[in-house]
Amino acid sequence: MSLISLGSMAFDELETPFGQSGKIIGGAATYIAYAASILGNNVKQLSIVGYDFPLEEIESLNKRGVETEGVEIVKDRKSFYWKGRYHLDMNTRDSLATELNVLGDFNPVVPESYQGVDFLMLGNLHPMTQKSVIRQMKSRPKLIVLDTMNFWMDTALDELTDVLKMVDVLVINDSEARQLSNEYSLVKAARKILRMGPTSLIIKKGENGALLFSEGKVFFAPALPLDEVFDPTGAGDTFAGGFIGYLAKTNDITFDNMKRAIIVGSALASFCCEKFGTERMKEIKIEDLHERINEFVELVDFKIDIKN
Amino acid sequence: MSLISLGSMAFDELETPFGQSGKIIGGAATYIAYAASILGNNVKQLSIVGYDFPLEEIESLNKRGVETEGVEIVKDRKSFYWKGRYHLDMNTRDSLATELNVLGDFNPVVPESYQGVDFLMLGNLHPMTQKSVIRQMKSRPKLIVLDTMNFWMDTALDELTDVLKMVDVLVINDSEARQLSNEYSLVKAARKILRMGPTSLIIKKGENGALLFSEGKVFFAPALPLDEVFDPTGAGDTFAGGFIGYLAKTNDITFDNMKRAIIVGSALASFCCEKFGTERMKEIKIEDLHERINEFVELVDFKIDIKN
Repeated sequence: MSLISLGSMAFDELETPFGQSGKIIGGAATYIAYAASILGNNVKQLSIVGYDFPLEEIESLNKRGVETEGVEIVKDRKSFYWKGRYHLDMNTRDSLATELNVLGDFNPVVPESYQGVDFLMLGNLHPMTQKSVIRQMKSRPKLIVLDTMNFWMDTALDELTDVLKMVDVLVINDSEARQLSNEYSLVKAARKILRMGPTSLIIKKGENGALLFSEGKVFFAPALPLDEVFDPTGAGDTFAGGFIGYLAKTNDITFDNMKRAIIVGSALASFCCEKFGTERMKEIKIEDLHERINEFVELVDFKIDIKN
Repeated sequence: MSLISLGSMAFDELETPFGQSGKIIGGAATYIAYAASILGNNVKQLSIVGYDFPLEEIESLNKRGVETEGVEIVKDRKSFYWKGRYHLDMNTRDSLATELNVLGDFNPVVPESYQGVDFLMLGNLHPMTQKSVIRQMKSRPKLIVLDTMNFWMDTALDELTDVLKMVDVLVINDSEARQLSNEYSLVKAARKILRMGPTSLIIKKGENGALLFSEGKVFFAPALPLDEVFDPTGAGDTFAGGFIGYLAKTNDITFDNMKRAIIVGSALASFCCEKFGTERMKEIKIEDLHERINEFVELVDFKIDIKN
């Protein structure tokens, strides 16, 4: 199936305990597109880059079946750039530099050829930008998934609350769920957030897995215990791209299929952490993904006869 | 089956965001005994209390089939007492008072009637005390499980390293695993610790579940997302008691059964957190446990056809 992937395409520069990445390609929409296209979807990219963005990176996406008509190339400005340093725990990081550049005035225009898609992934951006894309859709997609972050809760809470009423699935991490709901208990947080608009909520807990709350039910997906988290940049976007990508590919948005989609998203995110940037995502084949999914199956598999 | 439960029996006093407990009964061996006896085991308690310990608490254990011949009652000294205050997150706490009292000179003597048990649970105590019990066993139990904490890693690392060589399963939390191994990655930490003696390692991650490493395999058990963690005191001991209790009851120490045992331990620990001290453990029946185990089955249940 087709899906629209809205988000940044950018340069990242990362310092980790394992080394320095140099200037590499990143951005939410980049990771979403890699994850969703591995699953065989037609991904329609909606993003903005500057004159300095390498054309071969766009061609590399095209070769995977990613359409880039919706990627605006601004001739006289630079691409978004972010530099960060990870702490030893690889869970926390400091921003060393953030240059918005083209992203500062990003007003995405949905191309006519993107209309009619059933799946819309709104990657992390200003909630007004996310809303503008929803409003441009002539027919409402079957499923709208929104990713956001604490920055927008701090600076654009009203706009975020507004767009939350228009989406089906919200994807945030545990501290963001606590901030948005003002509840420490994630169960209580989920109950409050599900009253804000979305019918499903995914709470990501990094190396501690993810929770899905929907239809009064809860599902827990583990993260794969890794020898080393080499670079977690983009893992959340990859997770989201794998999640919506699996739903789109199977064209099934039931609770049971969302559970599978979270496992697929987690499996893809685990690959993402193994090398800098999108490097690992470019290498892996569908067979690698299948093998990794089997590791997840094994990881939580148990049978218990409760009469014991 | 029979099992020995070594550990403290004590008074606790807890301050939480939900209220104050007053002086209540606690101690590792108390929680272990409640958890293991719910499963229908014959638990042989090995502990020490002072003249102030209520006899009806010992009788309450006896009524559950817990033998207390190995509980020394010191006529002229007080029981161990600990007072603590939980922070808002309920994950961290401050010790406000610790009075060792009888526990300071605890030299457990294994009664003749305790000999021959197949399962030995060494609750959190000085590693020398744990070792002394192993050495008193005339025939080696089929399975020895050891619980410990960062305090002994700080103050008695050599003795801890020594006793680790004599046990089968080590149960610690994630920060303790990192401290003991000097590795941040839990996968690497597990690899190192399994070279120190135990053949199986359980790493508890509190509200983020638990990992079992054994035979080159790994299993992840979730924690049940709770509306509220009312009082986590004793949850780790309850987990350990449920774990070894299930293995003893089924008399099966294979990897597959250890996975089930971790689910049972997690289910019992989730009850423990719902009220102060042992209150909830005294209330629940085996049917409640079965229902809760089913919630764990549901929580992680998914089926995926990887050809999708």
